[in-house]
Amino acid sequence: MTSPSEELHWDPETVRKNAYKAVDWVVDYLSGVESRRVYSDAEPGSIFESLPAAPPEKGEDFDSILKDMDEVVMPGLTHWQHPSWFAFFNANTSGPSLAADILSSGLAVQGMLWQTSPACTEVETRMMDWLLDLLGLPQEFHSSGAGGGVIQDTASSATLCALIAAREKVSGFAVDQDGVTEKMTVYASGQTHSSIEKAVRIAGLGSRQFRQVATDADLRLDPADLDRQITEDRARGQIPTMVVATVGTTATTAVDSVSEIAEVCRKHDVWLHVDSAHAGTAAIVPEMRWIHDGVEDADSFTFNPHKWMFVGFDCNAFWVKDRQVLVQALSVLPEYLRNEATESGKVIDYRDWHIPLGRRFRALKLWFVMRSYGAEGLRQLIDEHLQWARWFEKQVSEDPQWEVTHRRTMNLVCIAHKDGCDRTEAIAKALNSEGQISVTPTTVEGRRIIRFCFGGTQTRMEHVEGAWEALQRAAR
Amino acid sequence: MTSPSEELHWDPETVRKNAYKAVDWVVDYLSGVESRRVYSDAEPGSIFESLPAAPPEKGEDFDSILKDMDEVVMPGLTHWQHPSWFAFFNANTSGPSLAADILSSGLAVQGMLWQTSPACTEVETRMMDWLLDLLGLPQEFHSSGAGGGVIQDTASSATLCALIAAREKVSGFAVDQDGVTEKMTVYASGQTHSSIEKAVRIAGLGSRQFRQVATDADLRLDPADLDRQITEDRARGQIPTMVVATVGTTATTAVDSVSEIAEVCRKHDVWLHVDSAHAGTAAIVPEMRWIHDGVEDADSFTFNPHKWMFVGFDCNAFWVKDRQVLVQALSVLPEYLRNEATESGKVIDYRDWHIPLGRRFRALKLWFVMRSYGAEGLRQLIDEHLQWARWFEKQVSEDPQWEVTHRRTMNLVCIAHKDGCDRTEAIAKALNSEGQISVTPTTVEGRRIIRFCFGGTQTRMEHVEGAWEALQRAAR
Repeated sequence: MTSPSEELHWDPETVRKNAYKAVDWVVDYLSGVESRRVYSDAEPGSIFESLPAAPPEKGEDFDSILKDMDEVVMPGLTHWQHPSWFAFFNANTSGPSLAADILSSGLAVQGMLWQTSPACTEVETRMMDWLLDLLGLPQEFHSSGAGGGVIQDTASSATLCALIAAREKVSGFAVDQDGVTEKMTVYASGQTHSSIEKAVRIAGLGSRQFRQVATDADLRLDPADLDRQITEDRARGQIPTMVVATVGTTATTAVDSVSEIAEVCRKHDVWLHVDSAHAGTAAIVPEMRWIHDGVEDADSFTFNPHKWMFVGFDCNAFWVKDRQVLVQALSVLPEYLRNEATESGKVIDYRDWHIPLGRRFRALKLWFVMRSYGAEGLRQLIDEHLQWARWFEKQVSEDPQWEVTHRRTMNLVCIAHKDGCDRTEAIAKALNSEGQISVTPTTVEGRRIIRFCFGGTQTRMEHVEGAWEALQRAAR
Repeated sequence: MTSPSEELHWDPETVRKNAYKAVDWVVDYLSGVESRRVYSDAEPGSIFESLPAAPPEKGEDFDSILKDMDEVVMPGLTHWQHPSWFAFFNANTSGPSLAADILSSGLAVQGMLWQTSPACTEVETRMMDWLLDLLGLPQEFHSSGAGGGVIQDTASSATLCALIAAREKVSGFAVDQDGVTEKMTVYASGQTHSSIEKAVRIAGLGSRQFRQVATDADLRLDPADLDRQITEDRARGQIPTMVVATVGTTATTAVDSVSEIAEVCRKHDVWLHVDSAHAGTAAIVPEMRWIHDGVEDADSFTFNPHKWMFVGFDCNAFWVKDRQVLVQALSVLPEYLRNEATESGKVIDYRDWHIPLGRRFRALKLWFVMRSYGAEGLRQLIDEHLQWARWFEKQVSEDPQWEVTHRRTMNLVCIAHKDGCDRTEAIAKALNSEGQISVTPTTVEGRRIIRFCFGGTQTRMEHVEGAWEALQRAAR
């Protein structure tokens, strides 16, 4: 008589056979995704309703489950890997990333402590150093010094960790003793990402303590206004705690001047966090490295390989200049996690670098992607994306109907129809509901614009040309 | 002339070929992991040093990268999927979970908003309802009412979100107006998980505001002490904000009495969060449902399918009774995320249910696991794990050298050698360094114990017997 554990788990050959089928499904999906409409047109609730109300009592075979990927799930998918995805920012992945993720899922090791899988920690430390090299980032963040990097799920979490570290540092690691939290203030431009205000709220400062700094004509944070606001806050007993410089804002990829902001932060002794979530990848191309000028003076820095660097979600990269501050802010060491390696002080326990305890082996994705493409290959690809954006910008600016509304800094082109907001909005809607391409319309300083972001793994020049054709068609 | 994007990305057949190789690697790994030592014996820094200091300039072929999985990574792995893994808690995965994760990695859709992939949201909502059914949890958390569930990365993040919601609710969503944070207090037993104190710190309350409640002889939270502490805190102007009941403590899987704790919370009008991270899965077996008695009176509840339910990390399940409180606490809606679906109020945007903005399609893992095994299969497997623990407990208690130190509530057996702590510690060390099995030694109330947790996907009765043999051998 066999026991449930002998009978019910897939044996190795079944794992192989069904995992192959899953791979085949993915390859077919990616090969054919171009023919699908980008945005799902599912009605709210329709996918939910097509699923039974309770789990099945009896186990089902894999083929019938896989079939439901096509029949139930597919109608409700918006296809981020579609070659004509120009909406939001990219969340691209790639073959090497997929292969690495299969290994990570299969190994299923936990990297919470060095001891719980040393390679999970040490490959990550090396990869974070590699990224500094790849992007030409300052050695202040390198693991060989006082700094270091860690993979987080998203920039939202990275920013929160930066704020926790800044908050603890400014309060002398005694936020509970002093009751200072409600006096702490955080500064960023009105163009910064919503995750900054969310972090300010989560950290217990409250939205009222989030200061929006004025921007210049190019939507870059105005360092003079920052200086003025910090000075005023300090004068009335507030505690300026962190400034976020945004490299590549969400709406228009405006690039704050990190070096000018750093000067203000130095003057007032305030933590500087640089959020380069989408834009960071651009710095793989040497001509784009200006976006990070001054980052050597920041206390923390983050960018998302899972956006534009062919590394599948989730893989955010976060560095601090002084890892001790971060670790002291986040470390709670219970008895059951004590071990010799940790107590030797010779190893990194990444659980103390972020909010979760458990963590999967995400560094494999970075390792496989950087090795498969090589630094040269990544430079060429990112350079090509920038060329696409330049080409698209040129078409728009030469067309009498259209206008490039904001300075293009990298792979995002922001445009508006000269007939005004209603027309622009109507065209954006038509594009998305037609379904051949996807774009994100938004409002910047009262004006309706359409954003085109170029960075998909599956995108080729023909799709960029197709975007321009679709736009002209929709405008007619 | 081909462009970089035409030349450098793997074409579909290369993706298939290399993803197959990754699958083969995983199948070989899992088939052969039993012959490896469980804990890595790598020296600190050895894996790091074996990797080049910078990324390669030229791309490398997949086979040479995959070879380094064996040569560089393998020596640094601690094997959580080893059949003789009895350490910490399990972080088990399974064939169906692996297959689902391949699909999730390949689709690479973003579920931050309903609109960004409706199926990613709606399958998740349904799966969270299914889990309630599978575990016999109260309908108060069902999406058809005012509550609902969401997948988080870990219980640490879930608990933090519960605390943020409780903090905002108790301050009337005006934590910034009132400066009340430093008066807020959080209660849990001294046996609770370290993530509770970490959440208290991250949320800006500070460790001093974390109250350890006394425990009874079975290490369960003492409701009378809880009542007393809350009353005293209230009397001296503190603001009792959240109580955490732990179902299955980390050290010994002690089960707090949720219903008695709920009564105290009701009396004082304090948010009750139930942390059943590891233990939750036990409730798949009807005889174990007593562990959640009283959960219907909790405000939030969490457990980790990624621990003991054959769902690969990360997949934490978190429910709230009033989703509006959670969403109001965590929602920041910038212009570029506005869309008709969100504004209709008819859909769920899960970004407002947790800290990150981006999110991958993790519900597929739950869907595939619950359908592949069926409720019946999962019940049989968990029941078998409980039988293993019962058998092991029996061997220990019948042996004159050993003692079961704590009441066994589920699949964890805590033991000590009768010769005392030094002997127990020496045996634990010998077991882990011998490498055939892995255990976690810890100290509870001053006494050194060894924990044996039984719940691995690859574990069979022979490995449980092997654990007992290894223990006897080590004791000789």
